[in-house]
Amino acid sequence: MRAARVARAAGKAAAVSPLAPAGGFPALPDVAGVTLAAGSAGVRYRNRTDVMLAVLAPGTVMAGVTTRSATRAAPVLDCEDKLARPAASDAGAAIVVNSGNANAFTGAGGRASVAAVTGAVAARTGVPEARVFSSSTGVIGEPLPHDRIVAALDGLVAGLRPAVFADAARAIMTTDTFPKGAGAEVVLDGASVRIAGIAKGSGMIAPDMGTMLVYIFTDARIDQPQLQAMLRELTDTSFNAITVDSDTSTSDTLLFAATGQAGPQIASGSAAAEMFRAALKDVMLDLAQQVVRDGEGATKFLEVQVTGAADDADARRVALAIANSPLVKTAVAGEDPNWGRVVMAVGKSGAAADRDRLSIWFGPHIVAENGWVSPDYREETGAAYMRQAELVLRVDLGLGSGTSTVWTCDLTHDYIRINADYRS
Amino acid sequence: MRAARVARAAGKAAAVSPLAPAGGFPALPDVAGVTLAAGSAGVRYRNRTDVMLAVLAPGTVMAGVTTRSATRAAPVLDCEDKLARPAASDAGAAIVVNSGNANAFTGAGGRASVAAVTGAVAARTGVPEARVFSSSTGVIGEPLPHDRIVAALDGLVAGLRPAVFADAARAIMTTDTFPKGAGAEVVLDGASVRIAGIAKGSGMIAPDMGTMLVYIFTDARIDQPQLQAMLRELTDTSFNAITVDSDTSTSDTLLFAATGQAGPQIASGSAAAEMFRAALKDVMLDLAQQVVRDGEGATKFLEVQVTGAADDADARRVALAIANSPLVKTAVAGEDPNWGRVVMAVGKSGAAADRDRLSIWFGPHIVAENGWVSPDYREETGAAYMRQAELVLRVDLGLGSGTSTVWTCDLTHDYIRINADYRS
Repeated sequence: MRAARVARAAGKAAAVSPLAPAGGFPALPDVAGVTLAAGSAGVRYRNRTDVMLAVLAPGTVMAGVTTRSATRAAPVLDCEDKLARPAASDAGAAIVVNSGNANAFTGAGGRASVAAVTGAVAARTGVPEARVFSSSTGVIGEPLPHDRIVAALDGLVAGLRPAVFADAARAIMTTDTFPKGAGAEVVLDGASVRIAGIAKGSGMIAPDMGTMLVYIFTDARIDQPQLQAMLRELTDTSFNAITVDSDTSTSDTLLFAATGQAGPQIASGSAAAEMFRAALKDVMLDLAQQVVRDGEGATKFLEVQVTGAADDADARRVALAIANSPLVKTAVAGEDPNWGRVVMAVGKSGAAADRDRLSIWFGPHIVAENGWVSPDYREETGAAYMRQAELVLRVDLGLGSGTSTVWTCDLTHDYIRINADYRS
Repeated sequence: MRAARVARAAGKAAAVSPLAPAGGFPALPDVAGVTLAAGSAGVRYRNRTDVMLAVLAPGTVMAGVTTRSATRAAPVLDCEDKLARPAASDAGAAIVVNSGNANAFTGAGGRASVAAVTGAVAARTGVPEARVFSSSTGVIGEPLPHDRIVAALDGLVAGLRPAVFADAARAIMTTDTFPKGAGAEVVLDGASVRIAGIAKGSGMIAPDMGTMLVYIFTDARIDQPQLQAMLRELTDTSFNAITVDSDTSTSDTLLFAATGQAGPQIASGSAAAEMFRAALKDVMLDLAQQVVRDGEGATKFLEVQVTGAADDADARRVALAIANSPLVKTAVAGEDPNWGRVVMAVGKSGAAADRDRLSIWFGPHIVAENGWVSPDYREETGAAYMRQAELVLRVDLGLGSGTSTVWTCDLTHDYIRINADYRS
């Protein structure tokens, strides 16, 4: 299996997803205090970069969220340890990420590989090892050839430059068909503050924490508890609100570095905090949606809006039941306005629902209401709407004020091809 | 969508599933007190039967379990009402089932259609309406043309005969590629008692064309509470232990009729009850597995065994997480011994798990243990095993004594074709 998957990921380049953002990788701002490099360690792929290094200036505050999977990978466990015991921020920080090998389910050797890589980064950058965070993404169950990563470090350190986010985003891709980035600039008390983020992810994507690898950088000045709280809260409505295939990775990691080199100290609850939070939310949502847009085999981008649920938790249950339903996702792929499958997904969600209060819209068109198909609805109307690449499906349960929005893609032959057609 | 899907279901006959039981429909025993008929009402299909009627002798006890979907169909709600208030068993009972239209999400008219059909059956058979159970399976959201069913009833009543289970099983098919039946004979206190069951379903399932319907008949003498308890308990390890695509129908119904015309009165807790229970379990498991074998697009039959969980509930969580994982199911389709995806599914299940205590077997071959690939495992061994059509995947969590077994099929291009490739 492995050789075949690698051949796909590295050899024959997959066509870029039809849902990729127009215009390619965005122009991201130079975040003061952040330097980056990408290099080729040959972990598994050939003829491409596969390691990225970020070195963050003294004063940097680190926050993060990681997968709740019970079988999470060694670098995830290491990140969790380090996030739980934040070292002094005047020590700076570093992030090193490789693609091609996930260092997951690798036994005791997995931890040793993490230590080898983070120790070597510490030795070469002067950042204490307790402040060197690492991620690995790729095949599960093979030992990480950490020596290759260590051997590439001198070149990476020598190549550190500001703002090369596109290079960094490309180095961490696996089955991704395009590099993912998003940024924002916000003026706080007259001073400009920047946010730039990169992400990777295309399959094994389901909401349970951060789904995939995400690195966000800002030069804002903000304390760690506030940053961590903001990150956790915004994750629920961004990275935890997307699903490609309901499968949850063993490596999901989101790290957020705030170098503190620009703008005022952001006080909790202040107007500046609110502005910063809004900008961060935009960046996170943009990155999360780019992951869905690169969902394996995706041809349709679907926003599922649920309103009128008994509470938000029920709304989320319904939204995820719809977004994860293979029958809904194949109907979307087939441009079939199959509202019966939506009714089915509502029914199986486990949320409180009353058939006779349920309303369903495809985009602006009401399809079902009062326990039956809407009298004005015409199948041709729904069918025409479904031919769009970007779709909104709305369900109102008519019970309360609970709401939830989730993003997903369709389920196509290409998902099967990508995941089934490569034999050992 | 509907016209196209009907064309598929009724017009061009689909090839019989490669996983269908050898030898075709089994020889089922004549269950004393049961008469059956199948007919063509033209509800939606042409050139095939689409209604079945079962009339059960006075003294018949009825039990049943139905879907827990919050959007369940009108006939399901009617069955629930009738099962909750068992009428006198000396009145006999009847079951009428149509395919082609699910009478689901049909507003208040749905209930009226059920009353029209069950009332007409009562008038023609002398069975009180409170003892006439009905099911409908097919498209969602269209009014049931109940007049067509009523018009076919005289012919059905005239044609009632014993033991025509194959005819009945064929009349209730939708996307099924073969009729499903299973039976048993057991000798209790020297008297022979028979069980015969039929089922339809091609997954859990396509809600606008298919659902799981199961009808089991016995001539055993057993009281209603005992029958109901036995049914509910055995459902958990049979029909509730299968999954094709994780989607739950709005119409799932299992009805069980015991005519009481053979054998001794089965006392609760007796040896006879245990023997009867064992025979019933075999029949239910056989029918449940036939539904998986007819899973949409299925080419592989997969048994997922989980042992060593903290408790049975956790074992079931893990088994279903594996069986419902699109990545595991596509790997099985691709004959890829991708144990990393099994690790992933264990991790996302929400059950207690410890990576370093996890063991995984593909059939007789141990693949992973002690948190890593097994030292003796060779990829070629796993790959060769995966080429079989019938597979067993075992996971031991190494934590406790919880166990669960679940059956599923693979996820193939044909599933996508069946559910996505028919446009409106």
